[in-house]
Amino acid sequence: MKTIYAEILTIGDEILYGQIIDTNSQYLSRELDALGIKVRRKSAVGDEEQAILRALAEAESRADLVLMTGGLGPTKDDITKKTLAQYFETEMRSHPETLAFIVDFFQKRGREIKDIHRRQALMPAAAQILPNRLGTAPAMWFEKNGKVFVSMPGVPQEMEILMQEAVIPKIKTFFQTPVIYHKVIKTFGAGETMLSELIEDWEDHLPPHIRLAYLPSWGEVKLRLTATGPSRAELEAQVAAEIEKVMPRIEKYVYGYDQDELEAKVGEWLLAQGKTVATAESCTGGFIGHLFTKVPGSSRYFTGGVIAYSNEVKMQQLGVKPETLAQHGAVSEETACQMAEGVRQLLQTSIGVASTGVAGPEGGSPEKPVGTVWIAYADGQQTQARKLSLTNDRLLNIRLTAYIVLDMIRKRLREA
Amino acid sequence: MKTIYAEILTIGDEILYGQIIDTNSQYLSRELDALGIKVRRKSAVGDEEQAILRALAEAESRADLVLMTGGLGPTKDDITKKTLAQYFETEMRSHPETLAFIVDFFQKRGREIKDIHRRQALMPAAAQILPNRLGTAPAMWFEKNGKVFVSMPGVPQEMEILMQEAVIPKIKTFFQTPVIYHKVIKTFGAGETMLSELIEDWEDHLPPHIRLAYLPSWGEVKLRLTATGPSRAELEAQVAAEIEKVMPRIEKYVYGYDQDELEAKVGEWLLAQGKTVATAESCTGGFIGHLFTKVPGSSRYFTGGVIAYSNEVKMQQLGVKPETLAQHGAVSEETACQMAEGVRQLLQTSIGVASTGVAGPEGGSPEKPVGTVWIAYADGQQTQARKLSLTNDRLLNIRLTAYIVLDMIRKRLREA
Repeated sequence: MKTIYAEILTIGDEILYGQIIDTNSQYLSRELDALGIKVRRKSAVGDEEQAILRALAEAESRADLVLMTGGLGPTKDDITKKTLAQYFETEMRSHPETLAFIVDFFQKRGREIKDIHRRQALMPAAAQILPNRLGTAPAMWFEKNGKVFVSMPGVPQEMEILMQEAVIPKIKTFFQTPVIYHKVIKTFGAGETMLSELIEDWEDHLPPHIRLAYLPSWGEVKLRLTATGPSRAELEAQVAAEIEKVMPRIEKYVYGYDQDELEAKVGEWLLAQGKTVATAESCTGGFIGHLFTKVPGSSRYFTGGVIAYSNEVKMQQLGVKPETLAQHGAVSEETACQMAEGVRQLLQTSIGVASTGVAGPEGGSPEKPVGTVWIAYADGQQTQARKLSLTNDRLLNIRLTAYIVLDMIRKRLREA
Repeated sequence: MKTIYAEILTIGDEILYGQIIDTNSQYLSRELDALGIKVRRKSAVGDEEQAILRALAEAESRADLVLMTGGLGPTKDDITKKTLAQYFETEMRSHPETLAFIVDFFQKRGREIKDIHRRQALMPAAAQILPNRLGTAPAMWFEKNGKVFVSMPGVPQEMEILMQEAVIPKIKTFFQTPVIYHKVIKTFGAGETMLSELIEDWEDHLPPHIRLAYLPSWGEVKLRLTATGPSRAELEAQVAAEIEKVMPRIEKYVYGYDQDELEAKVGEWLLAQGKTVATAESCTGGFIGHLFTKVPGSSRYFTGGVIAYSNEVKMQQLGVKPETLAQHGAVSEETACQMAEGVRQLLQTSIGVASTGVAGPEGGSPEKPVGTVWIAYADGQQTQARKLSLTNDRLLNIRLTAYIVLDMIRKRLREA
């Protein structure tokens, strides 16, 4: 099967000048990768006729499919759309359905409709219009010499819905894309090097149509298996068989697959085991609580917590002993354990967890340098603590600590 | 003065396939914008000789300065560096200082040094080497026909330090950049439309060498003034005079300038007024605490808080009355006020703040749809509450609520 090449073109001064970050092109990359289409280049140009024309010609010379985002807002859509009309040698005309949608959009919001809004319904005549149900700028689909060009609005939510509902189905019909199947194994607590040593010879024996990629981030490593072939059912079975082979070696680091998130998986296991959890946070300052509560439905297992930033709160709310703080300091195994036990008793949960550390950039000492953190877990039967030696970056230390605490709960629940 | 044009080129398969998001090019855009250099195009290509050569030639045809990132890791730097050597018609040779740094880097970490690491010291002979003190891949500076090409590693921290310490100073020496001065006014609580109505005629009378841009995000709007001219001192004075003119109209929304963050500014004001704060969080689940504690030194005014996710915690820790919950529900003005007052008393702080709401996506009702949130502020003299009607997006609701609570504190401190 012939490889299909794509390019992604972002239009807008705000990208060139760094006012906003281009998240759309990452989304489009992933979707194209999942379709088995090879992205050859990404480009960004400003809201400028000559730059857009040149970028289109270059992309056409290299790719079969060109996905464009941006340049379609009410104040500047003229330039992008007129340039597209020029490139595809067509004229601008009002598109009745789009005009009706725009009029309705403004009426429903009780806003006055102006000429600038009506002009948004002007479209290059050669374009197939793909309606946008979230905003006033639809997508445009152009075909030229067997190649496809799609122009979409830059607002991420609108662009993503347009892709899912209209563009991807049309791409699948227009091009003969290979069957491609991805499965991501999500691991926490083992570095890329350690994992690669554990699975090296398994990896060496993977069949050539199954590729492995390591995607590390934030203390976790994702293992992505990508299989290409004629039948999806066969690929799924082959990938499942490979995962079964490798699993015994990495099992204790695996928390889920594909879109699974550690905070949500820990929540599922707590729920399944009928357990509740409470947090006592010093250096993480509420971030562990935030990770729990960003998951919908977390009130079923997350009871609450105490942000014990000052020593007074550690003593008065959590029952940390004054002599412990005096002898061992706030950043110590003893304090962390008493915090975890204290919050568990206070909020009457199955499990209590705690963090206390030197997040930085100030506050370090020779014995406890910036990045020194103690975390603890208590469930009434056992109390466990662990010392972490993290980085000089305050925000990174907060996040890493919070995820490592979640992983500590995961490990205990696995053993239960 | 002649405009200087730049292009940004990102090298790496991981960007094309969407495995990572390209934050480097936004950083570079901003730095170039601040230097008065106009970015004309951004491109990303894979780790592939022909693609890199073609991208270099295209960039050279349009720009005076080409900044490249990526493609310099230990496993794949061969391709980028060899391709650069080919493009600049030079040979590869070992760079003694780089080799010494690499050997030292590995010895200090007690790691074995392999041939693959030594090869990292091979550099195109025509390049000026800019040492990287955080990693093993230095930056390379090439000059060709009055144009400049810089290749930097893709690791953001390494690239940013190289830019600040070596590349930007060299750019300033090589090119005659215009004097450009930016000042950003940071506002919270007014939308873009409202602000533009307030300052419309001031904006219309700005001198032509001072431009205004609206940069909205997360409930805040940044107003960026950009002035270009022959003397920095003059530009600063002119911009200051313009800000003085506009300030009376927008004062109550302005929390700071340039790199100021709302959470840090609120902290400064608390400190200046000798006040402390505690949080009682239901729907925000710890995120307000996180915003306070991500600021270094926040222990001087942030005492701690209670994450009161369950009603039991609201009652037992914060003293919310059972009859209040029964009559008005957890998401109510009364509950929010009792939470703020309760945490203030419990942790003995000057100020207590609270959040309680339906973050979504489940849990809404006709009277209290998803996005309904009550927030409260208590300082012993007054207790104030405010109802918010936010979105259907759980994470967005959490973040918006937290920032609006910070802004509520800001407004009260302004009046004090």
